[in-house]
Amino acid sequence: MAVRSTEIQLVARPRGEPVESDFRTVQTEVADPGPGQVLVRNVVMSVDPYMRGRMDDLPSYAPPWQLDRPADGAAVGEVVASEVADLGVGCLVVHPFGWREYALVPARHAERVEPVAGLSSSSYLGVLGMPGLTAYAGLFEVAGFRAGEAVFVSGAAGAVGSLVGQFARLRGASRVVGSAGSPAKLRYLTEELGFDAAFDYHDAPVRQLLRKAAPDGIDVYFDNVAGEHLEAALDSLKLHGRAALCGAISLYNSTERPVGPANLALAIGKRLTLRGFLVSDHEHLRGEFRQAVTEWLTAGQLVVRETVVTGLDQAVPAFIGMLRGANTGKMVVRLAPDPM
Amino acid sequence: MAVRSTEIQLVARPRGEPVESDFRTVQTEVADPGPGQVLVRNVVMSVDPYMRGRMDDLPSYAPPWQLDRPADGAAVGEVVASEVADLGVGCLVVHPFGWREYALVPARHAERVEPVAGLSSSSYLGVLGMPGLTAYAGLFEVAGFRAGEAVFVSGAAGAVGSLVGQFARLRGASRVVGSAGSPAKLRYLTEELGFDAAFDYHDAPVRQLLRKAAPDGIDVYFDNVAGEHLEAALDSLKLHGRAALCGAISLYNSTERPVGPANLALAIGKRLTLRGFLVSDHEHLRGEFRQAVTEWLTAGQLVVRETVVTGLDQAVPAFIGMLRGANTGKMVVRLAPDPM
Repeated sequence: MAVRSTEIQLVARPRGEPVESDFRTVQTEVADPGPGQVLVRNVVMSVDPYMRGRMDDLPSYAPPWQLDRPADGAAVGEVVASEVADLGVGCLVVHPFGWREYALVPARHAERVEPVAGLSSSSYLGVLGMPGLTAYAGLFEVAGFRAGEAVFVSGAAGAVGSLVGQFARLRGASRVVGSAGSPAKLRYLTEELGFDAAFDYHDAPVRQLLRKAAPDGIDVYFDNVAGEHLEAALDSLKLHGRAALCGAISLYNSTERPVGPANLALAIGKRLTLRGFLVSDHEHLRGEFRQAVTEWLTAGQLVVRETVVTGLDQAVPAFIGMLRGANTGKMVVRLAPDPM
Repeated sequence: MAVRSTEIQLVARPRGEPVESDFRTVQTEVADPGPGQVLVRNVVMSVDPYMRGRMDDLPSYAPPWQLDRPADGAAVGEVVASEVADLGVGCLVVHPFGWREYALVPARHAERVEPVAGLSSSSYLGVLGMPGLTAYAGLFEVAGFRAGEAVFVSGAAGAVGSLVGQFARLRGASRVVGSAGSPAKLRYLTEELGFDAAFDYHDAPVRQLLRKAAPDGIDVYFDNVAGEHLEAALDSLKLHGRAALCGAISLYNSTERPVGPANLALAIGKRLTLRGFLVSDHEHLRGEFRQAVTEWLTAGQLVVRETVVTGLDQAVPAFIGMLRGANTGKMVVRLAPDPM
């Protein structure tokens, strides 16, 4: 009894900013699950900056999306038919087959998750999921943040950045500074998330803005943006400072040769460490990460906002908007109400 | 009974490449040593790339040279008068007051060294001294080199680079690649020092040359040069590769804004670590470094060549020439024959 489904396919590889015509919406049928598979009705799906890289046919850490095939990405869904013993109908699972209403998911790709009181199932795409672990691993393991240090995070109002700043505050940062792209986001950072200072990178050269926001310098830079932000951070990093290189969203849609940090040689005299990372190398932290975040959430110490759009037909606009900074907190696309 | 001495003073801060008129030679008198001092007759002095930074009046890890004062830098000399109990007349000491014939050296700045059979006292300015420890610490501690890995070093025929490549070979590198600036240097690297491949960075874009010299990529890059070399290395570094940022000689005389590596974002997907360092943070390695190097030298496994110029009047031309790559191995200025 195959189900009728709708999916989003990539049909063209963008040059520069993606446009809606790079995608198409296709009606399909999804077969009954075979042995070791579950049929999942997606409830909410993720749009993430890293997906921009998957639109290009270039070697990268995540394989490129195939043309005329459904796009991939994390989703949370409800099992509606099952050929897997411990994933019965009604289970909530996280899996990598978003961008579609229904998905056939092999058991090895389905992680069963439990609803958390007060939290939407989309939390497993954000604070309890990949962006949360990215923030945790990048700040604590990659950058080696320690209590008493000053932290600067770019893209601070985004899914990862908003957690980096709060994790740093909760673990005793001397100062937490963030950059973002609108006055509303700055208010969110300082008034809701407890950042000590925030600036809008449109307002002046980032180097000046950062010096003013962190006059005594920074110990850790969590980079979601690259480009001018990274150069400014190199300028403000103190002796033995560390930069965790997580993303480069300022470059993702660029069609020009990127400009590297002209001041990278500062790393010698200041003994700086710059380290790129992917969350997939840090699975060993998932236990302590879930425990810490759950405690902070339970205690009401962690503020989580999402930007939610509704309907699969809004997935492409949501993705394009997210790359432009339309979101505050995690951007998700809701496809169905949470099962209760 | 003060002694007559000659010293080199800095009289102007260069813009771009230093010229001889930035310096002057001054006749002075050096007083008898006071309590806790020795009077040293310098035998050999060092000219090093980092000294270019000390010519500028900018905050840096080494204080700038003062105008109209003698320049500073490492030297080996013989104690000729002493007010220090355990540094008697005839002792050989390493100290930071080069660029002059005679120096009054406080005991805390004088390290007594013993002549090594078969080695000139200038070895304490090179393989047994700061450049040697720089190579050792940068390769093994900063870059975390392990047997079986492929190493690329720029400035490979220089004091530090020529040791980096040999240390890597002696500790089991799968491949050692170096860049240098002349055919004679390339022959030195491959025929005398045992590098597996070497290229002249003048011949083509470094990225192409490196790809050809290390077709399977590199695990470790030891950077003495920065600029185009660093960009090429980022391109060739493999997953989890490391770059030890030691120097940036391609930038030292530049009057233009440096160009940063356009491909730094590769560090994310490849999980690269770039770490700047100064040898002064790695004094704890001096014991094992001296032991390892002495064993290699005794076994005839380590090739050390110096470029020696003679006479204090040749110190400035030697320094300017060294910045242009005139040296193979350590560049030193001999002021007097080794005492025997």
